Amino acid sequence: MRALVIDRTGTLALCDRKKPDGTGSECVIRVTAAGICGTDLELLRGYAGFEGIPGHEFVGVVEEAPAEDRRWIGRRVVGEITVGCGRCQACLTAGRGHCETRSVVGIRSRDGSFAEFLSLPATNLHLVPASLPDTTAVFVEPTAAACRVVEQVRVDAATHAAVVGAGRLGLLTALVLRASGARPLVIARGERRRSVAASLGFETASADASALARAFDVVVDATGNADGFTAARRLVRPRGTIVVKSTFHGETPVNMSSLVVDEITVVGSRCGPFDRAIELLDTRAVVVTPLVEGIYPLERFREAFGQAERGLKTILVPAD
Amino acid sequence: MRALVIDRTGTLALCDRKKPDGTGSECVIRVTAAGICGTDLELLRGYAGFEGIPGHEFVGVVEEAPAEDRRWIGRRVVGEITVGCGRCQACLTAGRGHCETRSVVGIRSRDGSFAEFLSLPATNLHLVPASLPDTTAVFVEPTAAACRVVEQVRVDAATHAAVVGAGRLGLLTALVLRASGARPLVIARGERRRSVAASLGFETASADASALARAFDVVVDATGNADGFTAARRLVRPRGTIVVKSTFHGETPVNMSSLVVDEITVVGSRCGPFDRAIELLDTRAVVVTPLVEGIYPLERFREAFGQAERGLKTILVPAD
Repeated sequence: MRALVIDRTGTLALCDRKKPDGTGSECVIRVTAAGICGTDLELLRGYAGFEGIPGHEFVGVVEEAPAEDRRWIGRRVVGEITVGCGRCQACLTAGRGHCETRSVVGIRSRDGSFAEFLSLPATNLHLVPASLPDTTAVFVEPTAAACRVVEQVRVDAATHAAVVGAGRLGLLTALVLRASGARPLVIARGERRRSVAASLGFETASADASALARAFDVVVDATGNADGFTAARRLVRPRGTIVVKSTFHGETPVNMSSLVVDEITVVGSRCGPFDRAIELLDTRAVVVTPLVEGIYPLERFREAFGQAERGLKTILVPAD
Repeated sequence: MRALVIDRTGTLALCDRKKPDGTGSECVIRVTAAGICGTDLELLRGYAGFEGIPGHEFVGVVEEAPAEDRRWIGRRVVGEITVGCGRCQACLTAGRGHCETRSVVGIRSRDGSFAEFLSLPATNLHLVPASLPDTTAVFVEPTAAACRVVEQVRVDAATHAAVVGAGRLGLLTALVLRASGARPLVIARGERRRSVAASLGFETASADASALARAFDVVVDATGNADGFTAARRLVRPRGTIVVKSTFHGETPVNMSSLVVDEITVVGSRCGPFDRAIELLDTRAVVVTPLVEGIYPLERFREAFGQAERGLKTILVPAD
C-alpha cells in the first residue's frame, strides 16, 4: 500500500509499505480521509522521536476484522488513537490512554493514518453517522481533544474564558467552549488568524492587550509553542485555571512562586471523549467546515504539509 | 519598640522602631511568639523585594483597638496575614487574599511580627483557645497553609500521597494529610530529615528511589527550591496532581508537553483556613511540638535565623 513514512532523520516520504495483516486481533481500516495535526508537524521536528507512518485523525471503512468483530466490516468508523494493556498500574488508575506500554496511532509504536490502510482493535472504533461527511468526520479526534478541556474544567455561561492560539486546535477548543455556553475570547498574534476567528463569531485580541491581564477564569493554551504559556499566565486571574493543550519539543521556564502566590491551577489536557465529539459535530453545535483549507491525495503530501504549516486544517485522502 | 528590620540590601538588623499607632482602624497586638518560616529566609535572599519588619507567623495579645473592636482588647490572637480592599476584581473573584493592592504581614507593604508589636484589622484576627501554648499557636498560620492543600485537592484514606521536602512546611503538610486519612510518604534528601519524619511516624524515602516513580495520586512539593518540582513530577502518576507550596526566587524549566501527555494537574497553593488549623492543633490531630527546635529572644536573632536555615521551627519571643 502507499504510505507516508517518517524515517529516523525526520524526513517524510511516500513509500510502498505492506498492508496491515488482517489475520490478527485488530480490524483493518481503509482510510478515506486523514487530517494533518500540529503534532504531525512537531513529529517532523523531532517530537516524540517517532519513526513510521504518522497521522492519527482519520475516518475510514473497516475491510477486515477478527471473527468476533465481523459486525464492523463495511462500517464507516473513526478511532481512538491509544491502545493500552488494560492491566498495568497506569491503566488501572488513569485509564488505558495512559498505559505505560501504550501504542498511539501515528505517534508511538504504531503506524498511523497517512496510508491506504491502518489497523486498530475494534474496541477503539466508533461508528460515524451517515450525516457526517468525511471532511467533518476527520475532526472527531481533535474535537474530542477539545472536549477534554470541559471534562477537566467547569465551563459554562458564567465562565470568562480565553483561548490562546487561533490555529486548528485553538479554534476547535473555542468552538467547544462556546458549545458549553461560554463566550471565549480568542487570542492570536497575527491579524489573519484573528480574522478567521472573527469570521467564526469570536471576539479576538492580540496576546499583548494589557487590559486583558488577570481577567480570565479559564485560559486554554493551544498555541503549540512555549510563548503560549507565558501569554496564558498573564491572562489568567488569581485562583484561575490554565489548560495546556500544546505539545512541542523543549522546556518552558516557569515562575513557580507566582503560581503559588496567585494559586493558579495548570491542567495538562490530551485526548477526549469521541462520543461527545461526534454528538457536537452531528448536531452542528460545532461546525468545522470553515477550518478546512485543502484536500489532497497522498502523493501531493508536500503541498498538504506546507499548507498545514501556514494555515488551518489540511486533509489527505489516502484511499478513495 | 524593638524590631528586626530588613533593609534594601537584604540585611537584617535589630532596630528601634515606632510602635504601631493605636488610633487608626487596626488593632495593636503585643507579639508573644513569632515563628521563622522558609519565606522569611527567602526574603533575605531577595524574594519579593521586601523592606521592613519581616515575620508573619505569630501569636499575641490585643492591647489597643478601634472603638467598634474593643471586645478584642486583652484577647489572645493569631492573625490572617493578608489585608485586601474587598472591592477590586481579584477580591470579588478570588477573595481578599488575592487583592491586587493587598498588603501581607511581613511580606508585602506591611510590617510583620519580628517586633514587640504589630497592627492588623480585627477582621483578620482569630481567638486562640487557652489550651494552645504560644509555641503551638505560632503554628496556626503554617498549619492553615498546609490545610489549604486539602481544600484544593481531595485527599482521603484511598489517596496515595507523597510530600517532597521534610522541612517545616513539608512535615506540617504531611501531618495535615495524615489528619485527612492519608498515609503520606515523606521524601527528603538528607538522612537527618528522613529520621525526623520517621520519628513522627511517617514512611520515608530519598527523592531518587526509582520504585516510586509515577506511583502517587497527589504529590506536594514543599522543598522551597526548584528541584522539588522535578522530584514531584517524577513521583506523580498519570492524571495525578502536584501541589506546589514552594516559594523561591527564580524560574523552573518545565516540560509542558509531558504535563499534557500525562495530563498532570499542577496546583499553586498558598494560605489556608485558620479555623480548621486551630481545630487540628486544639484536638491534637496535628501535634507540632516535635518541630520546635529553638526559642530565642529578639536580640539573639542571628542564632535563631542560623538554626532556622539548618533545621525546623525556630521561634522568636519579641515581647513577654
